[in-house]
Amino acid sequence: MIQLSQQFEFSASHRLHNSDLSDEQNLALFGKCNNPHGHGHNYVVTVTIEGSLDRNGILVALDRFESLVKQNVIDPMDHRNLNVELPEFQDMNPSVENIARVIWNRLQEHVGALGDQQPKLKSVCVHETPKTWAEYKGPAG
Amino acid sequence: MIQLSQQFEFSASHRLHNSDLSDEQNLALFGKCNNPHGHGHNYVVTVTIEGSLDRNGILVALDRFESLVKQNVIDPMDHRNLNVELPEFQDMNPSVENIARVIWNRLQEHVGALGDQQPKLKSVCVHETPKTWAEYKGPAG
Amino acid sequence: MIQLSQQFEFSASHRLHNSDLSDEQNLALFGKCNNPHGHGHNYVVTVTIEGSLDRNGILVALDRFESLVKQNVIDPMDHRNLNVELPEFQDMNPSVENIARVIWNRLQEHVGALGDQQPKLKSVCVHETPKTWAEYKGPAG
Amino acid sequence: MIQLSQQFEFSASHRLHNSDLSDEQNLALFGKCNNPHGHGHNYVVTVTIEGSLDRNGILVALDRFESLVKQNVIDPMDHRNLNVELPEFQDMNPSVENIARVIWNRLQEHVGALGDQQPKLKSVCVHETPKTWAEYKGPAG
Amino acid sequence: MIQLSQQFEFSASHRLHNSDLSDEQNLALFGKCNNPHGHGHNYVVTVTIEGSLDRNGILVALDRFESLVKQNVIDPMDHRNLNVELPEFQDMNPSVENIARVIWNRLQEHVGALGDQQPKLKSVCVHETPKTWAEYKGPAG
Amino acid sequence: MIQLSQQFEFSASHRLHNSDLSDEQNLALFGKCNNPHGHGHNYVVTVTIEGSLDRNGILVALDRFESLVKQNVIDPMDHRNLNVELPEFQDMNPSVENIARVIWNRLQEHVGALGDQQPKLKSVCVHETPKTWAEYKGPAG
Repeated sequence: MIQLSQQFEFSASHRLHNSDLSDEQNLALFGKCNNPHGHGHNYVVTVTIEGSLDRNGILVALDRFESLVKQNVIDPMDHRNLNVELPEFQDMNPSVENIARVIWNRLQEHVGALGDQQPKLKSVCVHETPKTWAEYKGPAG
Repeated sequence: MIQLSQQFEFSASHRLHNSDLSDEQNLALFGKCNNPHGHGHNYVVTVTIEGSLDRNGILVALDRFESLVKQNVIDPMDHRNLNVELPEFQDMNPSVENIARVIWNRLQEHVGALGDQQPKLKSVCVHETPKTWAEYKGPAG
Repeated sequence: MIQLSQQFEFSASHRLHNSDLSDEQNLALFGKCNNPHGHGHNYVVTVTIEGSLDRNGILVALDRFESLVKQNVIDPMDHRNLNVELPEFQDMNPSVENIARVIWNRLQEHVGALGDQQPKLKSVCVHETPKTWAEYKGPAG
Repeated sequence: MIQLSQQFEFSASHRLHNSDLSDEQNLALFGKCNNPHGHGHNYVVTVTIEGSLDRNGILVALDRFESLVKQNVIDPMDHRNLNVELPEFQDMNPSVENIARVIWNRLQEHVGALGDQQPKLKSVCVHETPKTWAEYKGPAG
Repeated sequence: MIQLSQQFEFSASHRLHNSDLSDEQNLALFGKCNNPHGHGHNYVVTVTIEGSLDRNGILVALDRFESLVKQNVIDPMDHRNLNVELPEFQDMNPSVENIARVIWNRLQEHVGALGDQQPKLKSVCVHETPKTWAEYKGPAG
Repeated sequence: MIQLSQQFEFSASHRLHNSDLSDEQNLALFGKCNNPHGHGHNYVVTVTIEGSLDRNGILVALDRFESLVKQNVIDPMDHRNLNVELPEFQDMNPSVENIARVIWNRLQEHVGALGDQQPKLKSVCVHETPKTWAEYKGPAG
């Protein structure tokens, strides 16, 4: 068993807000991240998959791995307003924790088809800034 | 003469758009940066000042230098929508080039008062992503 | 379950030394890190906590997390001589391994109060330089 | 139990190729990494060991840890053509996954002798670029 | 006048060698970089252009700038053996200094056409490793 | 003319203090950097030299350049207390600005002998932290 990680980037805007709370409660909870006009980040996404090496000595073909993440995650999220344009965040707060979960859910069913040895999705790590990040290892992780 | 540089960060959203152009022209020129709902970045700002060392062997007191940039640049820009909330970008495109010029203009008049030796503002460099940045050295630079 | 990590920095001096050993033994064991006048580092501390998301879609309020670490770790250690000024290192060698353990002990009891879901301290990682670091996951880790 | 990690670098050239496949199959699988004249990378190797602290408050003497990796991994691989000059890659594809496994095998038997507490090799992580890396935690990992 | 910089990467192999020198002289001069089977690097290229902002508040359209460098520099150099596959290095040593000059020459004539204001190529900086780089500012620089 | 830069690191402790000032004045001026027991940093030194390429297509042999800086700067400063152990700082404040000047003075006379084309020392840049640095370009710079 070996793990392979690939890093991706996208730039997006978001606003932290819980519509069940009052404005005062939102401000107290989320601080400047609750600013009504939104703000943004260069998000860095690290996807880690795990499995056995195939007869070619690799876990998966890197091109296919990159295309999968680009198509399902980076293209729909890059240069977008996450609250407004992503279906998952219509009624879910786009916190860095939830972004990691959403990316996991977008990738989970596809990873097994990437290689002959049926690799597994191991972890999705999302950096909101170089100093703040969330990592999700799945419902059983 | 010696140069001292200090790096700062702010997270903001913006949209590249020229209201004198048609939607098609804006899209052709700015691509996905013209997305109507905006997107965002972790901006990194490097401010460089230049001058002679004072009798204490420093160019300026670092605390005062940091406070000046924090008060005039970082606090008003951090977690903001640059197009909507910054007066300079009401009718100026918030490109990384213009952000560097705006920061220069916000700092220029104050730098001389930072130290006994009247240091000068030498350069403002703004990273929009780790791979794209603009540097402005003033109208005479 | 999701993990949230936040990175912090402090600059301090230290000296590796075991007073039970002779000068020759200390020098053989710690090399230049045993220099009697001490040396220093920009330490980078990564604190990782783990738990379930609350009804606001976050693990903890980031401001409270940052304040907790700042108050208990960064403020008392920043710009200090670890051997001389930290109570824990009066009779413990301030190796990067021990610094990680000391930070864990300073945070452990407070993390549960950070969020409604009682998050747990998962890991403390301390970089002494960008190339050398220690990670402590607690007595059961 | 605590983990200590040390990072190393080497620059080498390699070519991804499986001699059991046709030229077309190799190209389809490995893309430009199959270029017949080879290409190269600045590889970054992170070695993590784990154990209990000794009476000096350290896991191992850092100098000895560095020497071990330098002698067994960095010196034989640095500024080399991996396919041509490394015995392990005479009939094994020098993918980043296999490089991690080869480094593990070169270090595994020696790590226990590094400290009184018999530390264990915990992980070998190899970055081929800043955005692509493989991590191997041993046959039982 | 403002400067805009964009960073690119390519991975390649090379060998430092002067065919006018003896084997002993080459080894003495270039050390392990003279290894006959070559080695490789992840090269990082930073291209800086300079000019006035146009009526859209930008120096050049970033997409066009990136395409220009990709087509003339990155595509022909990425995953190549520089000594064998690049025409410029048939009889020129592919030192990091010469790589910077070759990239300058490949870009120089095209930069003026990137924007209405005829921007100028200001600098080409090539990192061979994160710690070693050469910068070329043109024959008049 | 081309520029070649090489980066080095050393870890040291220091204290900012002007013995001509009162304790109160020192504290007001230098803040926590005036802490009497000192603190420390991982300093990063970038040395840039400039000149014409020789007949081998290089500015200088990299090994000789590295040895020069190691012998004159890194070895005497690494793992040292700058105030106590460096002759230049016996009566000069070891600010990051002065450290850059001291390194320039230690290298200046030796750089010309590094290559046939008599390269010149162009710049010494010292990072005290990743966010604060000073650059010195010589008395005429």
